[in-house]
Amino acid sequence: VTVIAVAQLSLAVGDTEGNLAAAADAVGQAAEAGAGLVVLPELCDSGYVFADPAEARGLARPADRSPTLRQWHDLARASQTVIVGGFCELGPDRQLFNSAALVDASGTRAVYRKAHLWDKEKQVFTPGDGPPPVVILPIGRVGVMICYDLEFPEWVRQTALRGADLIAAPVNWPAAPRPPGERPAEVVKAQAGAAVNGIYIAVADRCSAERGVSWIGGSLIAGPDGYPLAGPAAAGQPALLAVDCDLARARDKRINANNDLLADRRADLYRADLYRADLYRADR
Amino acid sequence: VTVIAVAQLSLAVGDTEGNLAAAADAVGQAAEAGAGLVVLPELCDSGYVFADPAEARGLARPADRSPTLRQWHDLARASQTVIVGGFCELGPDRQLFNSAALVDASGTRAVYRKAHLWDKEKQVFTPGDGPPPVVILPIGRVGVMICYDLEFPEWVRQTALRGADLIAAPVNWPAAPRPPGERPAEVVKAQAGAAVNGIYIAVADRCSAERGVSWIGGSLIAGPDGYPLAGPAAAGQPALLAVDCDLARARDKRINANNDLLADRRADLYRADLYRADLYRADR
Repeated sequence: VTVIAVAQLSLAVGDTEGNLAAAADAVGQAAEAGAGLVVLPELCDSGYVFADPAEARGLARPADRSPTLRQWHDLARASQTVIVGGFCELGPDRQLFNSAALVDASGTRAVYRKAHLWDKEKQVFTPGDGPPPVVILPIGRVGVMICYDLEFPEWVRQTALRGADLIAAPVNWPAAPRPPGERPAEVVKAQAGAAVNGIYIAVADRCSAERGVSWIGGSLIAGPDGYPLAGPAAAGQPALLAVDCDLARARDKRINANNDLLADRRADLYRADLYRADLYRADR
Repeated sequence: VTVIAVAQLSLAVGDTEGNLAAAADAVGQAAEAGAGLVVLPELCDSGYVFADPAEARGLARPADRSPTLRQWHDLARASQTVIVGGFCELGPDRQLFNSAALVDASGTRAVYRKAHLWDKEKQVFTPGDGPPPVVILPIGRVGVMICYDLEFPEWVRQTALRGADLIAAPVNWPAAPRPPGERPAEVVKAQAGAAVNGIYIAVADRCSAERGVSWIGGSLIAGPDGYPLAGPAAAGQPALLAVDCDLARARDKRINANNDLLADRRADLYRADLYRADLYRADR
């Protein structure tokens, strides 16, 4: 059993120093709570609502020379806590990536580049073209993906099929209207992703409105049955959620004497290539 | 705009006459509410908790000689309402199928055989090996799947990719414990399936405990943003939900100026074949 933590942080675009301090503070709190792993938000160093691509470029750093990842390495070494968080990456050909790193006491174990870009990110970032990493750690097998990625069931499923016990997901969920009393659809999708795959999903969102964008909050840790073990957090304020998780539970996909979430798949019948664009947008 | 209805019915295993009467009554109510389509529960004619395969066999009928489908045809003709409901099917080689039919005034338009079997159904039924039908109707394009099928995101996605505006899903959701205040995971999965695909999902569950099994209730109609337009219904009692649905909304997958739920898919990166059974159940 491992304590998994998610940190909902107050961040500000361009305030790298303040953002790194908020992350360090949260990792410290998580370590005090005994966390074996802590998830930080998407683009945790740069902030999110860039005025233009040039602003993002000014804040991006190569993964191998990123002060953010260096800080997380120092923190991971000091606290023996694994850190998964988002950072603004400058790629080898000067492309920008919306990336996340998994860092432990030995250093950066994986860098993942967001494959499904949200809204104006498409004007700033190059989409990643690799699968989510699944890192084998002493605490279990940890997959990493970012925000809108979670809304593609193929991506979550693929990561579960490749053995992830837990998906750590840095997000920046922009707030949107919803019916009174309803849990945000983003939270519902994260819960469903956990349930249909029998895995843990740990989501860290941010707070503090930025250039007119506010955030859902809703950070949570969903268990393999889809119900939240911690959260969803309230919007508008920082939060640190931490809860005991038995990651080995995600290895047993049986849900009763006759069903197994993954073995029950009819993969021979599944098709990913059926999209007929002509069926849609006929009236655009 | 079309009124879509779902009927949560009180059924009893073996009481074909009573079950057909309950269905007829519900279709009548739906027609009075102006429904263009009404969904009935899974195995709506036979009931669900069979003592043994022989009992199911005694209740199964071939689709082309099914009194159930004949009744639905009569009702559809009289009311001009499309009916989607579950029935116990005797196959051409005497296999049993957990099937659903879509019936309109012209007769049976499609028969679908459940591909993902739940628990003891595996001892009774042969799994279907065809994709969910997507029937083009004046009201829109209607897909059909059954209960546990909904929990395989590949199946829902594939049906959306093939053009369904609405998935009509007869279910029998057995009740299971859940944390206080939580919506049942089955409902959450249906909502998420609607949201990630931008489609309507209309689910009809049953009620009335049967041989020790009780039911979630929770019948609902989820809109393309994943939020319930009607329901989830309370457990333990019949319900008829009916709500205006603009099925054309499901044709436009844009969710903002830069994102489109289906066009954003990275199908080149999706793999359905990665399941490594050796990663799981090592301790069985």
